[in-house]
Amino acid sequence: MKNQSRLSPDALRVQDDLETLARFRDLGRPGFTRRPFTPWYESARQWLIKRMKSAALEVRVDAVGNVIGKRQGSETLPVIMMGSHIDSVDGGGRFDGMVGVLGGIELARCLDESRTFLAHPLEIVSFFAEEPTDFGVSAVGSRAMAGVLDGHLLQQKNPSGQTLGDALVASGYDTSKIKQAYRSPDEISVYLELHIEQGPHLERMNKGVGVVSVLTGFRRHRFTWSGRADHAGTMPMGMRKDAFAGACESVLDIESRCRMEADAPLVGTVARISVWPNAANVVADRVEFISDIRSPSAGKLEFVCNQSVERASAIAQRRGLHVEVTQITAELPIEVPPLIREEAAASLRELDIEPIELVSMAGHDANQLARIVPAGMIFIRCKGGRSHCPEEESSIDDICLGVAALLRLITRLDQKLS
Amino acid sequence: MKNQSRLSPDALRVQDDLETLARFRDLGRPGFTRRPFTPWYESARQWLIKRMKSAALEVRVDAVGNVIGKRQGSETLPVIMMGSHIDSVDGGGRFDGMVGVLGGIELARCLDESRTFLAHPLEIVSFFAEEPTDFGVSAVGSRAMAGVLDGHLLQQKNPSGQTLGDALVASGYDTSKIKQAYRSPDEISVYLELHIEQGPHLERMNKGVGVVSVLTGFRRHRFTWSGRADHAGTMPMGMRKDAFAGACESVLDIESRCRMEADAPLVGTVARISVWPNAANVVADRVEFISDIRSPSAGKLEFVCNQSVERASAIAQRRGLHVEVTQITAELPIEVPPLIREEAAASLRELDIEPIELVSMAGHDANQLARIVPAGMIFIRCKGGRSHCPEEESSIDDICLGVAALLRLITRLDQKLS
Repeated sequence: MKNQSRLSPDALRVQDDLETLARFRDLGRPGFTRRPFTPWYESARQWLIKRMKSAALEVRVDAVGNVIGKRQGSETLPVIMMGSHIDSVDGGGRFDGMVGVLGGIELARCLDESRTFLAHPLEIVSFFAEEPTDFGVSAVGSRAMAGVLDGHLLQQKNPSGQTLGDALVASGYDTSKIKQAYRSPDEISVYLELHIEQGPHLERMNKGVGVVSVLTGFRRHRFTWSGRADHAGTMPMGMRKDAFAGACESVLDIESRCRMEADAPLVGTVARISVWPNAANVVADRVEFISDIRSPSAGKLEFVCNQSVERASAIAQRRGLHVEVTQITAELPIEVPPLIREEAAASLRELDIEPIELVSMAGHDANQLARIVPAGMIFIRCKGGRSHCPEEESSIDDICLGVAALLRLITRLDQKLS
Repeated sequence: MKNQSRLSPDALRVQDDLETLARFRDLGRPGFTRRPFTPWYESARQWLIKRMKSAALEVRVDAVGNVIGKRQGSETLPVIMMGSHIDSVDGGGRFDGMVGVLGGIELARCLDESRTFLAHPLEIVSFFAEEPTDFGVSAVGSRAMAGVLDGHLLQQKNPSGQTLGDALVASGYDTSKIKQAYRSPDEISVYLELHIEQGPHLERMNKGVGVVSVLTGFRRHRFTWSGRADHAGTMPMGMRKDAFAGACESVLDIESRCRMEADAPLVGTVARISVWPNAANVVADRVEFISDIRSPSAGKLEFVCNQSVERASAIAQRRGLHVEVTQITAELPIEVPPLIREEAAASLRELDIEPIELVSMAGHDANQLARIVPAGMIFIRCKGGRSHCPEEESSIDDICLGVAALLRLITRLDQKLS
């Protein structure tokens, strides 16, 4: 590593990149909407490829649509990989994912300008479709790279009945070749992701950046409640089998169970629900909702999920309802390896920042990469902890601080891992 | 009145009519679906007109689509009107409404066959679109006859954005002439409706028919909850403004409030709900639901509705949410006049049945007619109290008992009111 004094991101350049990328959006939707499989996403990726090339990166698009910009190393070593995504949720913001990709490009420019030569090759990846797609599958690109985008996921359908596989084919990908996107653990020495926190902790602690200690575990369950459709006027209260009232009890049970546990991070949410027949004068006979429960503690996660299912059964039994619970997703918590955390902390100290650690409570491309290689994250403070909304905001100073920390972390790891 | 011994409905004829009418249905929907503004409804009405004519009734269709079959009386007196409807809810049954219309036709045939001449003219009405339409308006035909189908209701839109008024025009009606469907109180001496109970009380008391004492009051409110959309992983429980959890608390409050009141009939239902953005990983920022609360006691109804609104405000305040409650419908309870109840009871005694009274907890065309003229109802037992579902069922014997009771009630009132 040479010329460390010049390893300083250019705030105006970062701001310009963020503002330019923000212009690629669906003006027919609220906020900054850039959904995969849309012209807006495709144009943004084309712009990104040009931006990578102008930062002297060799660019390729892999078999599942991940855009990969490569900087050669001075030795034949597995790559140091950084990345994130540039798609958004519907009605989302301008920072979630984008700071990781654009921060990576800025980092490559800083290395070039400071004539810093790393032993390891460096790859900056814009992963394909990280946010939950209309097919119910998230992290499409990073799953493929980790070798877990299996046929079952490609068969998932969007509300129009199209499968994820068909959508990929329609976008020009050959689903029989998706396995080529897989990267063997031998090829990657470490994966690092710079991302906005999407929560309030850094702001509360008055810190611009922080080091992630654990990627949370999470589980999703589908609760399907069956009752009986009755006339809302003529059926006495005591004789009803009201599927919606039963579901409401279960929703509040999940909420209070997660509120009670104050000693370790634990959150539980029910925010997707369907009611049948959904008429004001017919007691609901069927309700479906999805619970989303997260904790960095695997034991606590399992305990709370089991309790929520048991409690739902008890509610159903008391009310003469039937409830069926199926697990949709179960991801174990993943601890960030001590080496990455220690070097990240040392990098922050180089910048005169006392490091703090925090838990990542969201799903990221890092969760997928952590399946195959050591993975770590650096979080950037965001205003009010808001994310997935147009108000999502991080300051350019904090973003540059994140890039500077990542620069130092990469140069430190480059030496340690050689 | 002459020849009372022959005033006996023909069970086979009634069954045949019910079965024939049941064939007019949308085979693409579950159960026996016959929605207004569909070809199935139109064909059924054409069939009904023929059936009325073959029962020696003079038939006309009024300005809003009510089909009216008239039998002349021997004197110039206001009509005795009977009626109900032949449209159904989506996925509904074969009896709700239909027994009143077909029972009326059978009654006319019995009068003819027994050469019974009434002083009053008799009208049998198949009211247009009684069930809640896609425009959110119910009892379209009977409202028009009662003079309360005002412009505001005609402007209500279905999910495709068409107004009720436009749909009527598309069906060949002239909305500027709807006022012609209005009937002055001077023209009608009494309105009577034969209908399935749609509840479990007659079955529980082992009675084939019963006399309605009160038409329930009911109120509908729209509750709109506003919270904040947050990431379901990163926002700690204590900092959330979860609109859906707040709404669930309110739903359970309404349910338990109505369950507690055991001394007078009272029911409360929340069965129509929308959640935004309705994504598993975004805390709900907006929820809308409709409450439907009913009681034959005006005081109790008002008290419970007020309490549900106050409680919702308290829930919203505690949770940092905003709730706005708007009243959609408010119908006062209507007592059936003592004369009708007494003569109905006497009619049942003529049939060797000890009369019982019960409350009508549903909305009926009778509720609209009761705005302008004395109105009463006779209820027919239905299996398990089930209604608005394909399993809805009343026995032909009970239906004929209802027709026989109505025949006697009409002949008694014909004398009393002359």
